[in-house]
Amino acid sequence: MKIALVGVGLIGGSFALAVKRRRLNVEVVGVDKNIDNLEKAKELGIIDRYESLEEAVNQVDVVILAIPVDALTKLLPQVLDLVKDDQLIIDFGSTKEAVCLSVAEHKNRKCFVAAHPMAGTEYSGPQAAFSTLFEDKIMILCEQERSGEVQLNLFHEICKNLAMKVVSMTPKDHDLHIAYVSHLSHISSFALSTTVLEKEKDEKHIFAMAGSGFASTVRLAKSSPEMWSPIFVQNQNNLSGALETYIKQLSSFKELLDKKNAEEMNEFMKEANKIRPIIDGIR
Amino acid sequence: MKIALVGVGLIGGSFALAVKRRRLNVEVVGVDKNIDNLEKAKELGIIDRYESLEEAVNQVDVVILAIPVDALTKLLPQVLDLVKDDQLIIDFGSTKEAVCLSVAEHKNRKCFVAAHPMAGTEYSGPQAAFSTLFEDKIMILCEQERSGEVQLNLFHEICKNLAMKVVSMTPKDHDLHIAYVSHLSHISSFALSTTVLEKEKDEKHIFAMAGSGFASTVRLAKSSPEMWSPIFVQNQNNLSGALETYIKQLSSFKELLDKKNAEEMNEFMKEANKIRPIIDGIR
Repeated sequence: MKIALVGVGLIGGSFALAVKRRRLNVEVVGVDKNIDNLEKAKELGIIDRYESLEEAVNQVDVVILAIPVDALTKLLPQVLDLVKDDQLIIDFGSTKEAVCLSVAEHKNRKCFVAAHPMAGTEYSGPQAAFSTLFEDKIMILCEQERSGEVQLNLFHEICKNLAMKVVSMTPKDHDLHIAYVSHLSHISSFALSTTVLEKEKDEKHIFAMAGSGFASTVRLAKSSPEMWSPIFVQNQNNLSGALETYIKQLSSFKELLDKKNAEEMNEFMKEANKIRPIIDGIR
Repeated sequence: MKIALVGVGLIGGSFALAVKRRRLNVEVVGVDKNIDNLEKAKELGIIDRYESLEEAVNQVDVVILAIPVDALTKLLPQVLDLVKDDQLIIDFGSTKEAVCLSVAEHKNRKCFVAAHPMAGTEYSGPQAAFSTLFEDKIMILCEQERSGEVQLNLFHEICKNLAMKVVSMTPKDHDLHIAYVSHLSHISSFALSTTVLEKEKDEKHIFAMAGSGFASTVRLAKSSPEMWSPIFVQNQNNLSGALETYIKQLSSFKELLDKKNAEEMNEFMKEANKIRPIIDGIR
């Protein structure tokens, strides 16, 4: 099988490494606007060689689009312009409504499978990729009824090979829920970081006093701005509501705090404790 | 050496296990208002036996107070009433101003060393204790000028034995900075949890879509309300300012989000990225 990997960063790179580990005779052709990343990806065995987008798409069975979502909505229609009937195009974007909308009326829509692997780290670039990132993780599949049978079968086969479980939902559901369980976490971390950095200008006290709890809550603040700002823009309508609720929850807590109302703070935290079985269930 | 361990939970229990592993001839006498915890701690080898507070204090060289900070400010003066000249009393409270104030005028103040080990997990109780929790961590020491020489020497010897680095600061500095690098993280997690749980009532989507990033930011929401509400009450004046700044940062971000201002969101996140070397330096 020949795969064109458009975007050789953490997600695309990890996908390629995983597929190569599990299948014989896979050839991966890299496409990226950053030549350093292509060279690095080649060196790391993520891709076998690199080509222009058009040349790569012409040669392969499967095209993986693992690029920021603003680039994705522009590039996906162009890729669909180039494909042949039996080719499979998969995107790994973290938003799904705008992506699906960008090719809703495209004559080759059936060649496209809209997907989102529930996997990632706070790092980016080909050097951050590793072959087990996707293992036992969920792959969200959207608008499956709009993909062709050949394409869906191959998509499911690939996910099975990667030990991923496919869960199907509408783009609307995807974008709403992902705002709460992923995008909001990132904003909470980014803002926690700027709050602490603004206060702790000399860093001396942070270094002495910050422990594993702080590291855990602020970890996502290391994430790539270039990847996240287009996600936030595309999912603004859902995320705005989530962020508003979060600010309200914090403001309610602040009221209890300022009244030193230990009893009601206890109740608030007991509610929050109900997340326990859910986190314990996360792979 | 004989130690009275008042509070046989995560922190006290981990301390006892660590001391026992590193010193021969240590006997630990447990004191706790919860008899089940005492039995459990004995079963786990954390304590050798248990006694009433008064009897325990009478028999030992060192008293460790590892209890919620509201109980601590009540109990610490009572313990100092009971001590002899050469005994060492250490508290492990997460706030320091109120604790130090509670014995500021006590005739046996010099027997007391005010400390805060920068270590913990989101779990609690003796079953959560483990012997390496304190290893290579920071021990904050406050008001060292008010502790006796004998007591300080023994305190430093114990910390050295546990492979902990002692950092000295005023109670005021401690409480201000800890509000930012520990207490605020907990509130951000508790509120993230209630925000998501309020939205995701049926849990189906959380289970499918939440990944390691969400787990990381919300992990501290599993923490014990009974331990945290007294900390929040005692550190309300510092924490209120930290929380206000955090809410302001989130509101600023929301404004940029609602304007879909990708450029300024990028700038915000680039600022937040500056936390990278700090987290990487956390043990």
